[in-house]
Amino acid sequence: MASAISRSQLEQSITVPALRSYLAEFISTFLFVFAVVGSVMSARKMTPDAATGSSSLAVVAEAMAHAFALFVMVYIASNNVSGGYMNPAVTFGLAVGGHISIPTAMFYWAAQLVASTMACLLLRLLTAGNAIPTTAIATEMTGFGGSVLEGVITFALVYTVYAVADPRRGSSGVIGPIAIGFVAGANVLAAGPFTGGSMNPARSFGSAMISGDFKNHGVYWVGPLIGGALAGLVYQNVVFPSSSSQDSSSRGVVDGLVI
Amino acid sequence: MASAISRSQLEQSITVPALRSYLAEFISTFLFVFAVVGSVMSARKMTPDAATGSSSLAVVAEAMAHAFALFVMVYIASNNVSGGYMNPAVTFGLAVGGHISIPTAMFYWAAQLVASTMACLLLRLLTAGNAIPTTAIATEMTGFGGSVLEGVITFALVYTVYAVADPRRGSSGVIGPIAIGFVAGANVLAAGPFTGGSMNPARSFGSAMISGDFKNHGVYWVGPLIGGALAGLVYQNVVFPSSSSQDSSSRGVVDGLVI
Amino acid sequence: MASAISRSQLEQSITVPALRSYLAEFISTFLFVFAVVGSVMSARKMTPDAATGSSSLAVVAEAMAHAFALFVMVYIASNNVSGGYMNPAVTFGLAVGGHISIPTAMFYWAAQLVASTMACLLLRLLTAGNAIPTTAIATEMTGFGGSVLEGVITFALVYTVYAVADPRRGSSGVIGPIAIGFVAGANVLAAGPFTGGSMNPARSFGSAMISGDFKNHGVYWVGPLIGGALAGLVYQNVVFPSSSSQDSSSRGVVDGLVI
Amino acid sequence: MASAISRSQLEQSITVPALRSYLAEFISTFLFVFAVVGSVMSARKMTPDAATGSSSLAVVAEAMAHAFALFVMVYIASNNVSGGYMNPAVTFGLAVGGHISIPTAMFYWAAQLVASTMACLLLRLLTAGNAIPTTAIATEMTGFGGSVLEGVITFALVYTVYAVADPRRGSSGVIGPIAIGFVAGANVLAAGPFTGGSMNPARSFGSAMISGDFKNHGVYWVGPLIGGALAGLVYQNVVFPSSSSQDSSSRGVVDGLVI
Repeated sequence: MASAISRSQLEQSITVPALRSYLAEFISTFLFVFAVVGSVMSARKMTPDAATGSSSLAVVAEAMAHAFALFVMVYIASNNVSGGYMNPAVTFGLAVGGHISIPTAMFYWAAQLVASTMACLLLRLLTAGNAIPTTAIATEMTGFGGSVLEGVITFALVYTVYAVADPRRGSSGVIGPIAIGFVAGANVLAAGPFTGGSMNPARSFGSAMISGDFKNHGVYWVGPLIGGALAGLVYQNVVFPSSSSQDSSSRGVVDGLVI
Repeated sequence: MASAISRSQLEQSITVPALRSYLAEFISTFLFVFAVVGSVMSARKMTPDAATGSSSLAVVAEAMAHAFALFVMVYIASNNVSGGYMNPAVTFGLAVGGHISIPTAMFYWAAQLVASTMACLLLRLLTAGNAIPTTAIATEMTGFGGSVLEGVITFALVYTVYAVADPRRGSSGVIGPIAIGFVAGANVLAAGPFTGGSMNPARSFGSAMISGDFKNHGVYWVGPLIGGALAGLVYQNVVFPSSSSQDSSSRGVVDGLVI
Repeated sequence: MASAISRSQLEQSITVPALRSYLAEFISTFLFVFAVVGSVMSARKMTPDAATGSSSLAVVAEAMAHAFALFVMVYIASNNVSGGYMNPAVTFGLAVGGHISIPTAMFYWAAQLVASTMACLLLRLLTAGNAIPTTAIATEMTGFGGSVLEGVITFALVYTVYAVADPRRGSSGVIGPIAIGFVAGANVLAAGPFTGGSMNPARSFGSAMISGDFKNHGVYWVGPLIGGALAGLVYQNVVFPSSSSQDSSSRGVVDGLVI
Repeated sequence: MASAISRSQLEQSITVPALRSYLAEFISTFLFVFAVVGSVMSARKMTPDAATGSSSLAVVAEAMAHAFALFVMVYIASNNVSGGYMNPAVTFGLAVGGHISIPTAMFYWAAQLVASTMACLLLRLLTAGNAIPTTAIATEMTGFGGSVLEGVITFALVYTVYAVADPRRGSSGVIGPIAIGFVAGANVLAAGPFTGGSMNPARSFGSAMISGDFKNHGVYWVGPLIGGALAGLVYQNVVFPSSSSQDSSSRGVVDGLVI
């Protein structure tokens, strides 16, 4: 972490605009998880014989829903209001890079986890008890392998978030949210039947809470958090460092958030 | 409603530019419903054994057609001519926020309902009597559950429309219509086999008229209208209020329509 | 037609830049038809039991290929070089609106028809004689019904082309080609199993030439040409007329081609 | 090749910014191949009876993953840092046009080949030995036919790259990476079951290395390299030459890289 928690940071995290950004984060995360988990439930309902495993169509449907919903919700939740990206791993990756203070990140996390849980709860109630699909690892994989796989795809996601938020790219305001959504969709297609392609501890946590199935749940925290943190460090310190002095530049990449 | 019907509002609703905007709305809604309902018919024709329920591919095909057609038709119908968004729930959500007068909204509604009905009628005639697919709720669901589900996904759609039309987002003119289309596509993937993922009373009304099947039809009015109205109120009064005086700002968000 | 063929128009159609634009049109049409027809062949190869009719996946695959390839090729072929849109019906719709002279349109048509035929021929040779899929109408449909269906979806396509080329929409240069590609994709999803969702006489002509199957071929000329012409007339004379004098404005919409 | 290797070119290829661009190329290629090869593995895992050939859904899933991942990685890898496009055939096409020096191209090639091999190796390790899918040609096709098919679709890809990088198109910075990704997706749909739709020697090389199966591997070098070189020559010398003097313009098209 680039900075310890200070009193002033805590105060900045509970102003009216800050509270509004947590609400925006809550709504966007709720709608995102509702669409993604709902799309898996829909695909499984239509192919009931594949209900226990991943049906092939379910992965395509989930990838499309993930790509479309994440794009739109990133687009809405930004506007200089929220920057938590509906995903604790992304929030953590931004905090590690020094772009979000620790107290603010913790409020984002809380909003994300509660929103995801409530979206899964509402889906279960509305669909009269259809099972809430959790993210799970394939039987032949180890927990370590699953964590690395989730780490790699979360690296791709957070690396993209840093690129989009980099003010040196003038057009990011336009296609940035699309890029974030679509890289996630590609990752779901790649990792779906192996780990579920979560990249998002909040999405996995909400469905685990409502289904009561926490098997291998740690995979969806360890992998994404490490992968997300690494992506931020690699992007801004190694591959695309600012040309000016390292100290100030390392904070400048995402602070001037352009999406 | 933010304003009662006045004589001047009524007169503004029947000028030549206004009539032109209803025609643009009619054409866009016709082409949109033609593509969406046609895509469901096509998918069912190809998988006849799944004709009575939702086949899995039909939902993916419909989601793609919905996303693509809604994006393009929103793009075309705007240009400072129409703003009804081919959907009575979106029109209602904009009227509740005070951005469309009641008489104008009613003309949009009429154009939308007639256009949807005529699109379904033409599809039935052209395809030599292939059944027009209505939106229906899954057997295990209640009408109340279906209304809430349609309400949540319509909330997501209208919340996105408000974000796109918000002049504080400079790039909305470019990706705004894509965002509106794609959030609808994600919602179809999530809700398809449960309620049909309509989000649109006009789309459900047209197919009900031509098929003669109005079972649970109220679901597709109650849910979307309440969800759409709530989305507008939450967006402009709670999450993204204008920083200036509340009274003028509450009207400013969508009036300065940028798409 | 807004203008008869004049000597000067003919001379303008055979300058070096004009010849270059026909070559660009040829290359783009070739690559477009190669991708679209190839995607149908690929889908049929993978589901051989559905080879005689339309398999459900083939339509989704073709719709994606159509949307993606048309978007990119429209994007490339423009740049003030070509404006034929790889489709005789679109070219005709622009000629009817007075935006392309008759001689120029005829050169575009020739480039389109030859390119499509050569793309289908190469596909047949490369794939060791796999059948070239033609566009065909469903057995329960009449030729008249097929023509109307093709006419409606071509109306949607050309109406979108006019909207994209309208200089009053500032952002068309960015999302215009995407809109053109995606509305075509939605139409393929809607009409695929009924008429093939061609919207394009050149695409149908090329596959008919190489397969030798011209059954109902007239459907793919009558419908698209009438639908395309109507779309141009409705767009620029009825729904979105210029506010200035009608005579000059009716030519101004597409001449100031912005994509 | 437009230029022989000079000492100064070699020195320019090993500066710190150049080394950083090879690292960016490595990361983007790794993430791209991880997503594309992973998506084929995922689709095959879900439809095990089709494991030996191409299942129909695998092609749709791979096309989506290819389109989405290539778009995003092109978007990230540019920013005036890298321009290798994660593909030796594209790099070669740019070198033939004189836009990348030979030494720089060779460093890009090395980064691409190593990255692809490592991505395939990691996929194999993580998935506990699931087979790495290689690109292969259909049984009824000849190696010559496969090379031509790969050449045509690589032509389409590199032709698009040239169009995107052409500074005369003002909006390329915004939709350019999307166009590059989506034309590749359309090509995968068209060529998938015939040759795998590789267009990319590095992607084919990496999976061949890890699986040990180099059958017909030459197809994926000969076709893409010739097709890519031809696309560059045709684009900048024939179809879209600069209006100024030929000598300077032939170098100007991609040097002023706008994405």
